[in-house]
Amino acid sequence: MEPPASPRRVTIVDVARHAQVSTTAVSKVLRNAYGASPEMRAKVRRAIEELGYRPLAAARGLRGRTYTIGVMLPDIRNPFFPEILDGVTGCLADTDYQVLLGPGCNGEKEEARVTEAMIDRGMDGLVLVAPVSPRARLEHVASVVPTVVIGRHSHSPKYDSVADDDVAGAALVVGHLAALGHRRIAHIEHHETDPTRIAEMPNAQRADGYRQAMRDLGLHEGIDVVSTSYTQQGGYEGAKELLARRPRPTAIFAGADIVAMGVLEAVSEAGLSVPGDLSVAGYDNTTFAALGQISLTSVDQAGREIGRNAARLLLERIEDRGKTSVQVKLSPTLVARRTTARPAG
Amino acid sequence: MEPPASPRRVTIVDVARHAQVSTTAVSKVLRNAYGASPEMRAKVRRAIEELGYRPLAAARGLRGRTYTIGVMLPDIRNPFFPEILDGVTGCLADTDYQVLLGPGCNGEKEEARVTEAMIDRGMDGLVLVAPVSPRARLEHVASVVPTVVIGRHSHSPKYDSVADDDVAGAALVVGHLAALGHRRIAHIEHHETDPTRIAEMPNAQRADGYRQAMRDLGLHEGIDVVSTSYTQQGGYEGAKELLARRPRPTAIFAGADIVAMGVLEAVSEAGLSVPGDLSVAGYDNTTFAALGQISLTSVDQAGREIGRNAARLLLERIEDRGKTSVQVKLSPTLVARRTTARPAG
Repeated sequence: MEPPASPRRVTIVDVARHAQVSTTAVSKVLRNAYGASPEMRAKVRRAIEELGYRPLAAARGLRGRTYTIGVMLPDIRNPFFPEILDGVTGCLADTDYQVLLGPGCNGEKEEARVTEAMIDRGMDGLVLVAPVSPRARLEHVASVVPTVVIGRHSHSPKYDSVADDDVAGAALVVGHLAALGHRRIAHIEHHETDPTRIAEMPNAQRADGYRQAMRDLGLHEGIDVVSTSYTQQGGYEGAKELLARRPRPTAIFAGADIVAMGVLEAVSEAGLSVPGDLSVAGYDNTTFAALGQISLTSVDQAGREIGRNAARLLLERIEDRGKTSVQVKLSPTLVARRTTARPAG
Repeated sequence: MEPPASPRRVTIVDVARHAQVSTTAVSKVLRNAYGASPEMRAKVRRAIEELGYRPLAAARGLRGRTYTIGVMLPDIRNPFFPEILDGVTGCLADTDYQVLLGPGCNGEKEEARVTEAMIDRGMDGLVLVAPVSPRARLEHVASVVPTVVIGRHSHSPKYDSVADDDVAGAALVVGHLAALGHRRIAHIEHHETDPTRIAEMPNAQRADGYRQAMRDLGLHEGIDVVSTSYTQQGGYEGAKELLARRPRPTAIFAGADIVAMGVLEAVSEAGLSVPGDLSVAGYDNTTFAALGQISLTSVDQAGREIGRNAARLLLERIEDRGKTSVQVKLSPTLVARRTTARPAG
């Protein structure tokens, strides 16, 4: 599957000679390392342009690097993930790294398949977004290729991790709804049975944070959790169940904006109004939440910031595979919009 | 970047011996080719399972195949593309092919970068979704690796193509709005200046179909096109411009659902109601359009069907690189919902 025969390929040596700098300098610019001055960068970029040098193709010859980063996404429909991806690609914009996505990895088997494919394709590093695989599996991947894990609340010496403080985020939602006067605040969570995942996954942490905040506010009698999935369908089904309760909850905290989309659908189908009959809050503060028609109260976990941090840590780890592992935890904020208000009556 | 040393890798020969079939038979099952009976498939699958054979990793040894398919997507935020992707992965579900996505390729340079990365990574075939590159570039890619192009109205002997009849789709929208009594029907298009793209891109075909349908219905005086982009922001800006017109259009046909999202935002910001003050229609019939809160009239171009066809053609082309190129054109349908109604007055 090689490109057709072509004139001799331009190498990093040609670029260095043309730019009148060392090959080390060219390599530094290519991988966007510290210690390359703006002038140096400009010089090397010009030489690359003029010679038509293609680092992507030539990379295999250069210390085995392919300048490809694999990002594994559980669900391409969840509007939160493009935010993370924007952060990753933003951080890589001035480098020669190309991102390739592994989509639809919402199971251990699918995750194994896509990470193996990425390793087999020789990718330089992986960003795993909210993986469900056991920690041992993540550590195995990380031992083969530099890896950053997003959204798992686990610390490993093998990989770096970036996560939002999901317990704090859930507390923000419960606090907001309680301050408005709600007592029967229900939660729709993503179903989880595996003990490691219950400890590490963002969805489990949010459900935990919800329960904790309800108790802290003396609302333990109002605790009501429905277990479905972090999908639109999951939100729809969860809301149908909650709307059949007597008495009905006066507010629903959906674990993700995409779940809230399904909740809004079920509420509208039942002929109820938001926030008149029911307040609804989400999590992720996606562009969907910000949409005028929807105007969904949501938790902003700064997806771009998460993605940017992950990419930065990954570049550092590619440079130094033995580096000490780092855990970045970001603090979420609440964005109150029109789907939450005082309860009726 | 090789996995760590491990016991001797299981090969296709081991699988064949274990299943008591020929290696050709195993290979047929692996690539889901015609001529492998269900019994044969079951036998080979069992042997693969029992031996822990990893075709993805072993693939390089097998006629150079990597069992990886690259799908290039212009924009990961556009909710239409997951539909196409579902069709592609659905068709590949019973094969050993893994899909890797190249996201955010909304320019010639980005497209060159991602297709080169995919070729360099040894992918067996590419699906290019609505690429903007010149035909010569697409043909170059197709000469290196089996390629199917989605959404370009061009015929090439080098690649297969799958597209929706965008002219017919636009005519469905205009016809629907005109039947409701609208005369001043405006259109928001994705700006295009390149002559090839004007002839081949779906967005240009939709704008063309709109103009043609307006003329056919005697509404040429109502033709009003604003050129922005197929993004939420593009819809927002386009609608702001149209809402400032005196007289205002009574209906806006947005070239894509994601554009309609921006239109709805601008309309709500202006304190106007849909469909009371303005009817709005989109294109793509995404899950967003179907959402109760939105209930957007839209054109269904059967994204899954498009994706399924593309994957099927690609598998055929991977089997037989010299095959005659095929063009599949699908007929869209209109899904009328609550954002379109008779004009006021």
